Amino acid sequence: MRQTQMFIPTQREVPSSAESLSHRLMLRSGMIKQLAAGIYTYLPITKLVLNNIEQIVREEMSAIGGAEVLMPVMHPKELWEESGRWEKYGSELMRMKDRHDRDFALGPTHEEVIVSLVRDELKSYKKLPLTLYQIQTKFRDELRPRFGLLRGREFIMKDAYSFHVDEESLRKTYQDMYQAYTNIFTRVGLDFRAVEADSGAIGGSHTHEFMALSEIGEDTIAYTENSDYAANIEKAECLKPTEFSTVEKKEVEKIETPGVASCQALADLIGIDLKETTKTMVVKIDGELVMIVIRGDHELNDIKVKKYFDAQNDVEFAEEEEILEIFNAHPGSLGPINSPVKVYIDYQIEAMRNYPVGANIDGYHYKNVNESDFPVEGTGDFRFITEGEVAPDGSGPVKFREGIEVGQVFELGTTYSETMGLTVLDKNGRSTPVLMGCYGIGISRTLSAIIEKYHDENGIIWPKSVTPFDIHIISMNSKKDEIVEVAESLYTELEKSYKVLYDDRDERAGVKFADSDLIGIPVRVVVGRGASDGIVEVKFRNSEEKHEIKLEELNSFIEENYNA
Amino acid sequence: MRQTQMFIPTQREVPSSAESLSHRLMLRSGMIKQLAAGIYTYLPITKLVLNNIEQIVREEMSAIGGAEVLMPVMHPKELWEESGRWEKYGSELMRMKDRHDRDFALGPTHEEVIVSLVRDELKSYKKLPLTLYQIQTKFRDELRPRFGLLRGREFIMKDAYSFHVDEESLRKTYQDMYQAYTNIFTRVGLDFRAVEADSGAIGGSHTHEFMALSEIGEDTIAYTENSDYAANIEKAECLKPTEFSTVEKKEVEKIETPGVASCQALADLIGIDLKETTKTMVVKIDGELVMIVIRGDHELNDIKVKKYFDAQNDVEFAEEEEILEIFNAHPGSLGPINSPVKVYIDYQIEAMRNYPVGANIDGYHYKNVNESDFPVEGTGDFRFITEGEVAPDGSGPVKFREGIEVGQVFELGTTYSETMGLTVLDKNGRSTPVLMGCYGIGISRTLSAIIEKYHDENGIIWPKSVTPFDIHIISMNSKKDEIVEVAESLYTELEKSYKVLYDDRDERAGVKFADSDLIGIPVRVVVGRGASDGIVEVKFRNSEEKHEIKLEELNSFIEENYNA
Repeated sequence: MRQTQMFIPTQREVPSSAESLSHRLMLRSGMIKQLAAGIYTYLPITKLVLNNIEQIVREEMSAIGGAEVLMPVMHPKELWEESGRWEKYGSELMRMKDRHDRDFALGPTHEEVIVSLVRDELKSYKKLPLTLYQIQTKFRDELRPRFGLLRGREFIMKDAYSFHVDEESLRKTYQDMYQAYTNIFTRVGLDFRAVEADSGAIGGSHTHEFMALSEIGEDTIAYTENSDYAANIEKAECLKPTEFSTVEKKEVEKIETPGVASCQALADLIGIDLKETTKTMVVKIDGELVMIVIRGDHELNDIKVKKYFDAQNDVEFAEEEEILEIFNAHPGSLGPINSPVKVYIDYQIEAMRNYPVGANIDGYHYKNVNESDFPVEGTGDFRFITEGEVAPDGSGPVKFREGIEVGQVFELGTTYSETMGLTVLDKNGRSTPVLMGCYGIGISRTLSAIIEKYHDENGIIWPKSVTPFDIHIISMNSKKDEIVEVAESLYTELEKSYKVLYDDRDERAGVKFADSDLIGIPVRVVVGRGASDGIVEVKFRNSEEKHEIKLEELNSFIEENYNA
Repeated sequence: MRQTQMFIPTQREVPSSAESLSHRLMLRSGMIKQLAAGIYTYLPITKLVLNNIEQIVREEMSAIGGAEVLMPVMHPKELWEESGRWEKYGSELMRMKDRHDRDFALGPTHEEVIVSLVRDELKSYKKLPLTLYQIQTKFRDELRPRFGLLRGREFIMKDAYSFHVDEESLRKTYQDMYQAYTNIFTRVGLDFRAVEADSGAIGGSHTHEFMALSEIGEDTIAYTENSDYAANIEKAECLKPTEFSTVEKKEVEKIETPGVASCQALADLIGIDLKETTKTMVVKIDGELVMIVIRGDHELNDIKVKKYFDAQNDVEFAEEEEILEIFNAHPGSLGPINSPVKVYIDYQIEAMRNYPVGANIDGYHYKNVNESDFPVEGTGDFRFITEGEVAPDGSGPVKFREGIEVGQVFELGTTYSETMGLTVLDKNGRSTPVLMGCYGIGISRTLSAIIEKYHDENGIIWPKSVTPFDIHIISMNSKKDEIVEVAESLYTELEKSYKVLYDDRDERAGVKFADSDLIGIPVRVVVGRGASDGIVEVKFRNSEEKHEIKLEELNSFIEENYNA
């Protein structure tokens, strides 16, 4: 393609609002343009890369027997009421009315639509298993759209849904899909981990997130180098303590702690280590206040708390006013002795002896406290795992990496089948709810994750599998006939075997090189002064080295160094 | 692909609400499923065909230097206010509010977005011409969605926009696009005509509609067999009369015509031909009433009337009440003599002598009326052309064909550039509004038009260029090992060179054949009893003939008869 026919509005400076590296690079290299918050136009380079990613996704979906469909953007409210999600989904669901005042959602995901699609047609187990997928524009009204395409309001997803008569069949497709995702993310060039996203659940749904490892991610992954174990730290299970303190219990002692506002300050005052202190928090579980005590050097994990209590709503910290009213003390002075609300402690507290806690009186703490000094309603895993702890599979110490979620596979089970009446007759002629799996890939997110990995300070460096072009021909002077002639004939010649971008613009060489680095095509062929002697310069985007190559040797040089 | 992995819910009976042939066939062959009025899920067969059509469109757009982008579905209200279309577009524009109560339109077309996209970047004529296109889901809140994909509310369009510094450049891209459209519709196998959509306009915009000829269409095309002339009858110009009556003028005579309610009844009463009568209509032009007189056998063309008067709003007939109030007579008794509103006559009236008109008194007409008997405010072309009239290019009599509009090319000129401030500096450094063209193809409409053409009573007959599969292998008995074995190995073998659908279902032969006819794959290979003797049956969907072919000769037989 001729660069004069492309629309690649590169920028030397980008707005400071562009927070992530991929967002900045996509703006600098003229790949996207914002239309509204979280809503972007994908410019030609982006569209070419997206087409490549989508092609890889299609091939891998097809290889495991997935059939492609395209479902609508507009979903009638009635369907989402059937599943109960019209209410539950909240303000992230984009909603609208048509001219007849009928309500619609703009699809953020298509479980309702796919169930309504197949439930009239799948009557017998003989038609199962079935896997349908689509690549489609999705809508989610993010409160704070950011990071460019990483958290947008209009974005491209591949979503797949599978249908099964029994658990064994669901498990098989789940494994196939897991392998297909592994192939896809490998082929597009990402470093990734398939992460247990629900590892601690007893009888819960089976699910993995595919996280692209990156410098800055939205998620943190806990993993070990000794096994396949990897989990989102939101869900990474903490092992119960294996060693319990055996020092003798002491008597509780009330001490004055004026102005002590943190665990570290308390540790310093008493002369103990931070990890020998405790932290008391009061949280709201579906409206009810409870107290949770964890170690002073740990952080409360609200996802785990929500799951422990099987709460409907997200867990919130109690407001300072509520705490003052009930405890007659400030949040920093709380503790489990004489607590007016039920007390839960983290597993790690069980291993401790003679620890300090807040006295529920401002300016005072108790020290030498033990579990027997207060009534414990329950114990659990309420905290985030920390680096260096032993992984839940016992394989070794966990490390942390930042990650970008690019895909998720999920065993839905019968959740939607039961609420929406999707049943088949099984081998014995009995009506049974269909088991479902759902499987998503953020196509536009994957693009961002690729850029987060493949770049240097001058721009993008496309991996071959998704690159918009293989070769970037740069004509150094569009006014000199001998240069233009060689460039044009090279363009015609190379286009026969490669995807070629030909910079035929009337621009200074400096502008062309800077743009070329930004755009990041793997092979650069510069047609300059040497052209009349039949020599061009070849440079690969991922190396500094320049090669003077005779025209007649160019094809084989590229063949050997790029295709091989 | 294995048919057990596809989702092709064929139907023996379709709802009577399916009015068009393509709609019925798409339902019968399991290609679409309705989610809401005018909103469909595209099932696997449809998606495969759409992918093929889209690929052809991409190739032809790329061949004329078009670069692909993808613009958002959600458009901020502010942009549509800039162009003035937020108001003007009316209730066909789908509208919504986000969580912050900001207004958005769901794009039915993207002039506003593309202008806002390029206006910050195109500063100099050097960056022109530029052609950008996208293939995208569009939204239009049709009052009466119908005909399946032919008039939907959510549909797939290819829309392209071009930008130019002068008329010559615009005209060149228009011609390139016209040729690309001709290539596209030829490649997908349609019979079509590029139709003048604005032929009569003096100084108006240049535009052509591409109409697929079909048995039943939404539009009627007037064309001749003697030239390239073709026009939508909404716009087909009627030539002025070449022969004027020369009979002697008679005196006006008032006659009693009790109960005469039509031109034909009047003609019978007086003993003249229908085409010697006149028809008087009172219409509302932007609120003002005017009278238009046309020949009794002609039909008023409101599009032409609107254009004649340069009206802002669509032309409406005056209400009976209004007419009674002003004329003191009913609509059927009106005429130009003593009309209280201005009188306009069709060109054909000028050629007539001694004709009857209503007397503006119920139960009475005047006969022997001539143009000199009433004041004429203006003459014009106010009617639809009729079959047999000479075409406006003088080449011969026009014929009518039904047609489906599948594409349109349009010289927009500076309409949007001027209202939205899209200018470049020209060669002389002067700021000049950019000239634009826009070019649409209804992708899902094109699919329907293909089916309207390629079918028989048993189902679809796909043309090779867009067919979802080349070969349909049918295993006649999925319980007999020797049949399954041959079918499976054929499937593996043929997939190397062809797109193959393999009916591996455990169904009766009758069901398989009926489904196969409905689905319409060009080549059918039946593996049945002959399999153990190394013989299969080949039948082409467009012929009744069956061929017994030895397995070792199958490849060359298909090669010769299908690929050739």
